[in-house]
Parts: sequence; C-alpha cells; structure tokens
Amino acid sequence: MPLSVAVAGASGYAGGELLRLLATHPDVEITTVTAHSNAGQRLGAVQPHLRSLAHLELVDTTPENLSGHDVVFVALPHGKSGELTAHLDDTLVIDCGADHRLTDEAAWEKFYGGEYFGAWEYGLPELLRADGTRQRDRLAGANRIAVPGCNVTAITLGLQPGIRSNVIRPDDLVSVLAVGTSGAGKSLKTHLLASEIHGSAAPYAVGGVHRHTPEIVQNLEVSGGEGVTISFTPVLVPMSRGILATSTATLEPGASAADVRAAWELAYANEPFVHVLPEGHFPKTADVLGSNMTLIGLAVDEAADRVVVISAIDNLVKGTAGAAVQSMNIAAGLPEQAGLTVNGVAP
Amino acid sequence: MPLSVAVAGASGYAGGELLRLLATHPDVEITTVTAHSNAGQRLGAVQPHLRSLAHLELVDTTPENLSGHDVVFVALPHGKSGELTAHLDDTLVIDCGADHRLTDEAAWEKFYGGEYFGAWEYGLPELLRADGTRQRDRLAGANRIAVPGCNVTAITLGLQPGIRSNVIRPDDLVSVLAVGTSGAGKSLKTHLLASEIHGSAAPYAVGGVHRHTPEIVQNLEVSGGEGVTISFTPVLVPMSRGILATSTATLEPGASAADVRAAWELAYANEPFVHVLPEGHFPKTADVLGSNMTLIGLAVDEAADRVVVISAIDNLVKGTAGAAVQSMNIAAGLPEQAGLTVNGVAP
Amino acid sequence: MPLSVAVAGASGYAGGELLRLLATHPDVEITTVTAHSNAGQRLGAVQPHLRSLAHLELVDTTPENLSGHDVVFVALPHGKSGELTAHLDDTLVIDCGADHRLTDEAAWEKFYGGEYFGAWEYGLPELLRADGTRQRDRLAGANRIAVPGCNVTAITLGLQPGIRSNVIRPDDLVSVLAVGTSGAGKSLKTHLLASEIHGSAAPYAVGGVHRHTPEIVQNLEVSGGEGVTISFTPVLVPMSRGILATSTATLEPGASAADVRAAWELAYANEPFVHVLPEGHFPKTADVLGSNMTLIGLAVDEAADRVVVISAIDNLVKGTAGAAVQSMNIAAGLPEQAGLTVNGVAP
Amino acid sequence: MPLSVAVAGASGYAGGELLRLLATHPDVEITTVTAHSNAGQRLGAVQPHLRSLAHLELVDTTPENLSGHDVVFVALPHGKSGELTAHLDDTLVIDCGADHRLTDEAAWEKFYGGEYFGAWEYGLPELLRADGTRQRDRLAGANRIAVPGCNVTAITLGLQPGIRSNVIRPDDLVSVLAVGTSGAGKSLKTHLLASEIHGSAAPYAVGGVHRHTPEIVQNLEVSGGEGVTISFTPVLVPMSRGILATSTATLEPGASAADVRAAWELAYANEPFVHVLPEGHFPKTADVLGSNMTLIGLAVDEAADRVVVISAIDNLVKGTAGAAVQSMNIAAGLPEQAGLTVNGVAP
Repeated sequence: MPLSVAVAGASGYAGGELLRLLATHPDVEITTVTAHSNAGQRLGAVQPHLRSLAHLELVDTTPENLSGHDVVFVALPHGKSGELTAHLDDTLVIDCGADHRLTDEAAWEKFYGGEYFGAWEYGLPELLRADGTRQRDRLAGANRIAVPGCNVTAITLGLQPGIRSNVIRPDDLVSVLAVGTSGAGKSLKTHLLASEIHGSAAPYAVGGVHRHTPEIVQNLEVSGGEGVTISFTPVLVPMSRGILATSTATLEPGASAADVRAAWELAYANEPFVHVLPEGHFPKTADVLGSNMTLIGLAVDEAADRVVVISAIDNLVKGTAGAAVQSMNIAAGLPEQAGLTVNGVAP
Repeated sequence: MPLSVAVAGASGYAGGELLRLLATHPDVEITTVTAHSNAGQRLGAVQPHLRSLAHLELVDTTPENLSGHDVVFVALPHGKSGELTAHLDDTLVIDCGADHRLTDEAAWEKFYGGEYFGAWEYGLPELLRADGTRQRDRLAGANRIAVPGCNVTAITLGLQPGIRSNVIRPDDLVSVLAVGTSGAGKSLKTHLLASEIHGSAAPYAVGGVHRHTPEIVQNLEVSGGEGVTISFTPVLVPMSRGILATSTATLEPGASAADVRAAWELAYANEPFVHVLPEGHFPKTADVLGSNMTLIGLAVDEAADRVVVISAIDNLVKGTAGAAVQSMNIAAGLPEQAGLTVNGVAP
Repeated sequence: MPLSVAVAGASGYAGGELLRLLATHPDVEITTVTAHSNAGQRLGAVQPHLRSLAHLELVDTTPENLSGHDVVFVALPHGKSGELTAHLDDTLVIDCGADHRLTDEAAWEKFYGGEYFGAWEYGLPELLRADGTRQRDRLAGANRIAVPGCNVTAITLGLQPGIRSNVIRPDDLVSVLAVGTSGAGKSLKTHLLASEIHGSAAPYAVGGVHRHTPEIVQNLEVSGGEGVTISFTPVLVPMSRGILATSTATLEPGASAADVRAAWELAYANEPFVHVLPEGHFPKTADVLGSNMTLIGLAVDEAADRVVVISAIDNLVKGTAGAAVQSMNIAAGLPEQAGLTVNGVAP
Repeated sequence: MPLSVAVAGASGYAGGELLRLLATHPDVEITTVTAHSNAGQRLGAVQPHLRSLAHLELVDTTPENLSGHDVVFVALPHGKSGELTAHLDDTLVIDCGADHRLTDEAAWEKFYGGEYFGAWEYGLPELLRADGTRQRDRLAGANRIAVPGCNVTAITLGLQPGIRSNVIRPDDLVSVLAVGTSGAGKSLKTHLLASEIHGSAAPYAVGGVHRHTPEIVQNLEVSGGEGVTISFTPVLVPMSRGILATSTATLEPGASAADVRAAWELAYANEPFVHVLPEGHFPKTADVLGSNMTLIGLAVDEAADRVVVISAIDNLVKGTAGAAVQSMNIAAGLPEQAGLTVNGVAP
C-alpha cells in the first residue's frame, strides 16, 4: 500500500518540486497539498507545470489538515514547522526549512532564532561521520528529518572527503557559489526580478553573514574537521536552478594529488547520487538539472598549494526536494533511489 | 585634428567594442578596419550593431594596411601582433592580446610561447606601484601598450590596495570569477553554444592553469606583494558580458576592518574609473555594462579572518576596449575620460 | 522481454534526449549508441548529463552496427537515414529527421531533395484526419515512422481543431514562434553562440522559406483544410528549449467564441499529451520543459475577427524525442505513455 | 546655457534610462530627480549603474518640486501626470506614460480611463501622416508631448510605410512581439520574477486586450489606413531589453516585392533613427540595445501573399526614453540626435 503524503507549502518552488518528484514515485500517494494565500485554488492554477496533479485542491496549512498522513513534507519559511508539526507523533515529518538543522543553540540563536530550537536527524545520507559511519545509518527509521540547506549540501559534499581523510586543512576553506534564483523562493523582491537578474551576476550575504555558514561548519566538524573556518560567498547568476560551488582548501603537508583523488573517489565509490568525474573533467549545472545527482570535479593547484573542488547540484532537487525524498526512502525502508533520477535535463 | 586610427581584427568582439567606443570619441577618426575571412565586406554586414560605421569596408589585416595611422589597435589572437606591428615605428600601437603583457620570459614561455616575447607598457593606469607611483605615469607618451587580460584587471583592481597597504597577506589569495561568454571571443566551440550555456554555470581552466595567472602575480608583485600566490577559477555564466570577481585574502595580523576600508578608499579616491561602494553595498555586473567603470564592494569576514572583495567590470570595456581607449587617451595627451562613460546600461 | 534499442546520432541534442527518455522507459534496453566523430568515446564524455548511461561506448554509425535491434531511432541530419536503414527489414525504424515526412515529391524536392524520397507513417498520433480518425490508428504495427518537425508539431496541434471543425479559415493563417536554441542542434555556427543569443531575439527563415512550411500545410490539409496558406516566422530567443507558437486564424463566418472553445476542447478531451487550458489561461514554455505535454491557450479577438492560439511544447520532447518514444509505444503495442511524463521541470 | 531638467519617477526603469541618456546630453543639466518611496535617498543607492549622477538626492514627486524647470520628464504610472503637471505652464512636459496618447475619448475610456483625458503632441517624429508631412513637424515648439508606447513604436514603424503607400491592406494585420521584461517596469509581480522568466517564453494580454491596441490603430489611421484591424500579441522572453516585432500584412492586389521595398526605403531614407536593412537581412534586438535606432528587415512571402516585417528597438530607448529625448530635442530646437546614439551595445 502506498504511503499517504502531505506537502505543506505546495505553492512555492520547493513544494512544487516535491510534488514533481512524488508524482512519479511508485510508493506514495499525494493526499494533501496545502498553501496559505492560494488555499482554495486548484494546484493547476498555481503550479501549471504539474499537469498530473492539476486537479488537487490546495487547502489551508493547518495541523489538522496535515494530520493522518504517513509522511508530511514541510516546505515553509523558517519558523513555521515547529508549531505545525508538534503533534504529528506517528508521522514521518521532513522539514525542508532551516528550523531543525543546527545542533548548536548559540549558532541557531545568532543566525535564526525563535521558539522551536532542536535538531532533527539530518537529511544528508552521504554525510561522512568521523566514526566511519555515514549519516544514512541514522536516517533508517527516523520520524523527524531536517533537510540540509542547498548551498550547504554543495559545499559539504565537495569538501568532506578531504576533511575526513586529512588531506586538506579545515581552517582555511573558501567557497564561492554560482547559484540560480529559485533558491531564493517565490518572494517578491526587486533584486529577484528578471530585469535585474538577466545579463548580470550579483553577490549577496558577503562577508560570512549567510545563514548557511554555521551549518557548513557543523557538517565538516561531524566529518572530523577541527577548527573549521570557511569564507563562503554566494553569487546569483542568470539561471533558475543550479548551484556550482567552487571550493578550495590548502593541502595538508605531504598530501599528494593522488592522495586527494583517492580520498574523494573512495568516499563516493558506492554513493548513488554523488559521482567524482575523471581527472580533467568538471561539471556544469546543466548536467544535473532536474536530477538528484551531485557531480564533482577535482584539481590540485600546485603553485597555490590548494585543492580546487567543483561541485554541481540542482538546488531544488539534491539541494532540497530530492534530498527530502531520498531521506524519506531511507527512513521508510524504501529503495533509496525510488522516485529519483540521476540523469539531468540538458541542454 | 583628430587622430587617425586603425583597428586590426574589427570583426571580433574586442574589435567591435573598440569601434563602438571610438565611434563617439571626439578626438579620433576611424580610418581603417581590418579582418581576416571577412575582408571585403562592409562592416555593417559583420557588426550590425555599429550603424554609424556600417559603410566602412573591411580590408585585409596586413602591415601595409595598418601603416600610416596615428594609432593602431590590435584585437587579434595571441601571436599575431609581433610581426604585424614590427615596423610601425611612428605609430602608437595598442595590443589587446596577450603577447606583450608579461615581463618574465619563463612565465611567458610556459603559458604562451612564440617568437615575439617582450613586454610593452602595461595598459592599466590604476596599477599601484610599490614606489608610490601609478602605472598611469608610464603611459604618457608611450608608443607601445599592452592591454591587460580582462580577468586580470578585475582581480588586480580588487586586491592591489590591500597588498600595497600591507593589510592583506599576498600568499593565500583566492579568486573565483563569474564571467560572461564574450570573453571567449567569437570562436566556434561547442561549449560556447547558447544551448550549452543557457541555464548553466560551468568552470574552466580549473587548478591554476589559466594563462592569466602569471599576469595577476606580476601585477600584485608590482604593487609590493612578496610571494604572491593565487588560486584563480573562472566560471562561465549565462550572460554575454561582465566579470564579477570574488577575491578573498587573509588579513595581516593587526589589520582592522577600518584599515581595510581605508586602504581601498584611499587607493581609488581620485580614480575616474574605479569606485569603492559604501559599507554593505556590493556591485552586480549589470551596473557596469557598457561602461569603463570598476565597482568594488568590500567586507571583512571576522570568523574566517578574510577580506572578501567583489569587483565588477565589463570584460569588453574596462576589461579590453575601454582600457585600450583610456590608455590611448593618456599616451596621446587627451583627456583620460574621452570617449568613455562611467554609467552602465541597466537593466 | 525488453525491446532492444539503438540510437543513431547519440552525441547530438535529439539523440541525447532520446537516451534520456529511454533510460527510464520500463520496456526497452539501450543496446547500441552510435556517433560520427565521437565514435570510440564513452557516452559520459559526450553527454555528461546522462549518468546512468555513461558507461556505454559510442560506435560508428553504420548499417551493421544498427542491425539486429527491435527498434532503431535515427537522430541524424537530413539525407542520412535512407541508405543507413534501407536493409533493416525486421526493425521498427523511427526517424527524427526530415527525410520521410512529406508525401508530396515536388515539395520535398523544393525544400529538401536527395535520393531517398518516400513518406513513412507520420509520428504525430494526435493528428486529426478528415475522415474522423486520428493518425494514432495508423501507427499501430507500423515499422517505419517519421517524427514531425518541432515547429510543425506546435503549429499543427495549435490550429488543427479549428480546421477540422470548420470554425477557422485555412487560407490566412499566421504563426510566429519563439523558439529555443536546441532546435538548431549542436552545429557550430556564429549566430548560435551564447554571446549572440543572450539578451537578444532574432528571427530566421523569414518570408516563407522555412523547410517546415510544406509539412504544416500537409498536416492541415489532412485535417480537412482546403487551400491552406500560412505565414510562418520562427524567432530564436534566449532559452535552450521550448517552442511557444502564437498562431492566428480568421474566424469562419458565424463561428462564435463558444464554437471555437468547443472545437479545441473536443479535439483533445482524451489526448494524454495535449491539454487545452481554461478561458483566460495561457501556457509558457517552462510549464512543459522536459515533458511530452502540449499546452494550449485560446482567445478570440473580436475586433480583429481572429482566433489567437498559443501552443507550448518542449522542442526536444514532444517536438522530437518524446514524439518518437510515443510513436514507438503505439507501434510496438506498449502503453502510449510509457517512459514519458506530462509534468514540466519548472521553475 | 543648458536646459534645466527634472525627471519625475527617477527610481523606475524608464526614469533611470532617461537619466542615463540625459547624463551625456550636451545641452541639459539634470536639476531634479523625484521618487515616491525612495525619496530621501541618493540616486546612487537606487540606480547604482548611474555613477555620474550618484550624488543626486531623490525628492518627493510633487508639483512644487517639478516647477521652475525648462523641461520635465514624467516617467510615472498611468493617471499620475495630469494633476502633477497641470500648472507647469512655461515648461516643456514630456510624458512617458499613457495618459495623453489617445485622441479618441471612447478608446481612452475603454482601455485607460480617469480624469485627465486629452491628447498631447505625439512623440513619434517619424510618424507618416496622410497629408505627406511627418509628426516631426508638429513637435517643433510643442510644450506638451506624449511619448508612444514601446510596442506601438515597434509596430507603427514596421507597418506604416506599407499603409502610407497603399502596398499593404490595413484590415488584416497581425503582429507578434518578443519583448524584454523591463517593459513591465520594476513592479513586484510573481510572473516577472527571474525564476519564472528564465528559460521560458510567455504570452500576455492575448486576444486583443492589450492597452496599446487602440494606439496602434490610431497611428496607422493617421498614416492613411482605413478600417485598420490588427491582431497583436506580446510574448515575454528571457531578456531585459528589446522588442522584436514580427508584423505581417496582406499585399494589396498588384503590389510587387519591389513596390514593397521601395515603400519602406523611401519612407526612411532620411530618418536618423530608422534603417531598412538590405534584402535578406533581418535585425536582432541586441543590434539596437542601448541605442535609439530602429532596424527593419523585410520579406515578401509569395505563397502566403503577405509582407513580413521585422522591426527591432530597445524598448527603454527608442521605445521610451530615447523617444522622449529625441522629442525634446525637436521641441526645443536642439539637434535631433543630441544625446542619442545609433550604435547598439553588442554582444
């Protein structure tokens, strides 16, 4: 029998992508879709690309409407999931927002704040833990999962093999990301207008102030990094989807280019959704558009004594909705790849 | 009397931009435009956006056709300017290519090579020299000028104030650039097709292998840096023009955020084509599209102990043709801003 | 047992899209992929977005390499399929090129020409025939199928209900299409460079000279139109995929807006891959990206006495590879929707 | 002595473009810039691309702040200019909005409405009048000028030569426009978000409901058309600027292709801002980006018995701000081309 599923926040970009993936998932039935101002409308009027679900009616985002499902996906702004899901005891709740990602309360207060602090199981199955396990093991049977931030996923998957294997230093990391606009959501802000974005590249949250920063540090510490420090700058570029993270780290003394390649290839040899490209090959974001795949390219810059790692994901899939589905699959004992693809839509 | 000007390579992007700027320059007359395969055609057929020059006929790129002008601009692939301009003794020759930028022959052999090594005066008037002068002083009266590479200009202008003022360390620089496609020229390559570029971000020359690397090092050494080391990664993004450079450097011990801001503001206080934005403001490339302006935003990331500098230029203007015109103006004793604008075409 | 499938021309855009769709088709096994200059390479090097097929080796496009399959898809330039597939007697051959679409030899000679004239069954299942049947009926059991041109599909599906129902006049049709660049293939042409396409809209084949014109006329005559005349202008716009066709036709005297809506809704009521949107709604191409869906919006302009029909498809899916798979499904007795989706990848 | 100029609505796209052009106009001094919610800020904070004007302070948009100038440009939403400019008796007022374009009160009531009906002199100098004059003649000395709508300009300049010369029929016109997003202004609407526009083409105002329709009809009647009827559909495409209008008209019986070409070439032989390209050449919008030029390509489709006219403008320049400056130049007795360029910024 399929799992009954509700998606809270179905009129946004993350909610829409969850529905796109769930619509072809063999083991789920989409029972409930909720919205705020769009409640009462058919989904077809709000997400016209989801033809197979066009007949669904959006209902209000309330605890009542979310109760009684096997799985509830929450795709709402920060601060909304706590109260909404407090009483869904027998339900697998997967939050695509930021509320339950951080384990450090001080960091959470500084970057987010609110009433409902408390980390859930972290929805990045590929996260390497210092004890040799992977985060995947902790997701089996979980009933509360916090999906990582999209930038965080790109950077963590890019850098963690080197941290875990001690071939790079954790204290002088630099990541600059080219990011698509959908990561900012459907919010009506002047700087997100097409006229502002076309033909332009624009940085934001410059200088270490992006909310994803403590989450990156947290992950790389889980992977064994001590004194993790990262300079992280996202740059909005004219595309709807995709994150291309260029991350660099100083080599640990004695680490060779071969050590570097071995560390990354070993880390991901059996991962269905992370692939390390051969020497001299680097990904572009179009390669992963619409897919749950992470593509990684690696180079060692001998003159600069730095590893340069390029990681590409689709921010709405592996960065959000795909990670949520992958986590559900693991938690519910389904095949990890169910409902997900590794092939991008290109060109 | 206006200067008579020839543009060699008038059918390419750099050549076209030179002509666009020169067409409204009050002190020049465009006498000759040359091309290779397009010779014999009217300019209007090849550069349809240059209506005011549509009647000009493209002639072959030969030493003969270039002789007899006051100024010759060379916008040709690497290796072409040496022989072509060897005998233009009484002419101001301004090369937009890479042939005459490097002063170090070993670096030149490694990254370029060829028969005509030999640095010309370097066409970056704002370059800060360790002796307290600026490169501008050396351009007055010059008759051979090498225009910098576009990525080089974005990074040099972004980082040199900190090097010159000893507020940042020169040995752990990282720059990641979002670059428009026109920097790659009109070459017919699969990865430059619109279908490949749309909706995608793609890195290239990853791992310290970009030819612009030694030129960046050279500049920052001129500014007083010792042991300059830079990890530099360009990322092609879906826009025709523009470079947004995100450059980071470790703070020198004791350097405060105020020291940083003072260094940059002092360096560019009187520069007509470089402007440091106020605290909390950062440029986007659309702000400088079509203009010769460089906009710079600055932040200090205390947690990462790094300065983050964002610099935005139009690769075809300040990155190429505008720098060439600015250099000509200085060399020929014209007002430095003649024919150039500081206002971008936005949105 | 799955059908064994070969794709000839696997390194191009149409070939790549065929493989993307076939990779998740439950009833096929991709056995052979062929190429010309890329033969000998792994598919992963040429189509890096197709991770699940990355291990396949491209072999030469020869009759020998294509023999012995249940189905051969041909995604090659005009003029290549005839000789290549002449002896594949027991194979279902589906040609995505133009060689076998036209039934009129004179039109074929004028717009294409070559040695292998001869129409195959036409791969547009939804084509309305004047006798009340649909083209779908003719595809069951076929062993040679010619997939329609992408612009043709958008216009035919847009206009045929009105022709078939006599609510619009067939002799004064006008269609203007906004088309993505992938329709032009991976060919290295200056006007297809990203720098030329970004931020620009450019018409081509203006004045009735596009090769798709006779095919549109042929289809609308099959639907019952007499004296079909169409002015058709495609406009390249800055996107990789998608066709948005704006087609207008004069109303037949006496035809009301209700008649118009009824004609379109009736025609497509049971079609899985064509949907008529409600009054006041119109599609955008993002709604169908990556899907086999055709979305249609309708309005009657009373002042101009014209119907305006907007039809949106993904040129690589419903316009090419999806139509090919849909046709294979019908010809081979598989479920028509197998391997195809109706949901777009948006935003 | 330069003209003192005020720009009302300086924080929008039209206002910004007016300022960009006026900043390099040799005969004006920008004295006052007004805004609504941005009043009190420096222009540099709102229009960061206008470096040379960054120091100007935005003041409230009031009659008082606009009084005392030689010229006032109004770049405000519909319905604002009437009251604001009612008492500026000795001032040349140029309205970029729609309030004073229509001469027919019924059409105005139907499509706009409000208190301040009344046509001003129409700011399209190239408009051909049935009496053999051009609109230019009426602008000399005018003190109230209404700038045309951007779509209207593209279509009128495209079709009027054929109407004026009786080589095309005025009663079956069809125009489909690919338009950039800046024409919709800086308004915060979901469908104008970059995520919605990227990689997509979207029609709007389908079916004859666009407000620009009666203005097109009015112009073509002024040019001598009787019973002018036009089906006009704009399509938003992923670019910030530019309009590419594809307009078709049925040939008058007996009109040859040579007649057609002669009509267009004759109409624009002496126009500085309209150019008819040679046979077989068609414009793209990038060719006119940032310029006041209109480029026109022409073809006769013999099979369809229709002329196809492609006209390209920059919607913010010839479509709005450039037309305003050109009109000011004529009204104030300045050289018509002052402050304007005919060369586009490409690629």
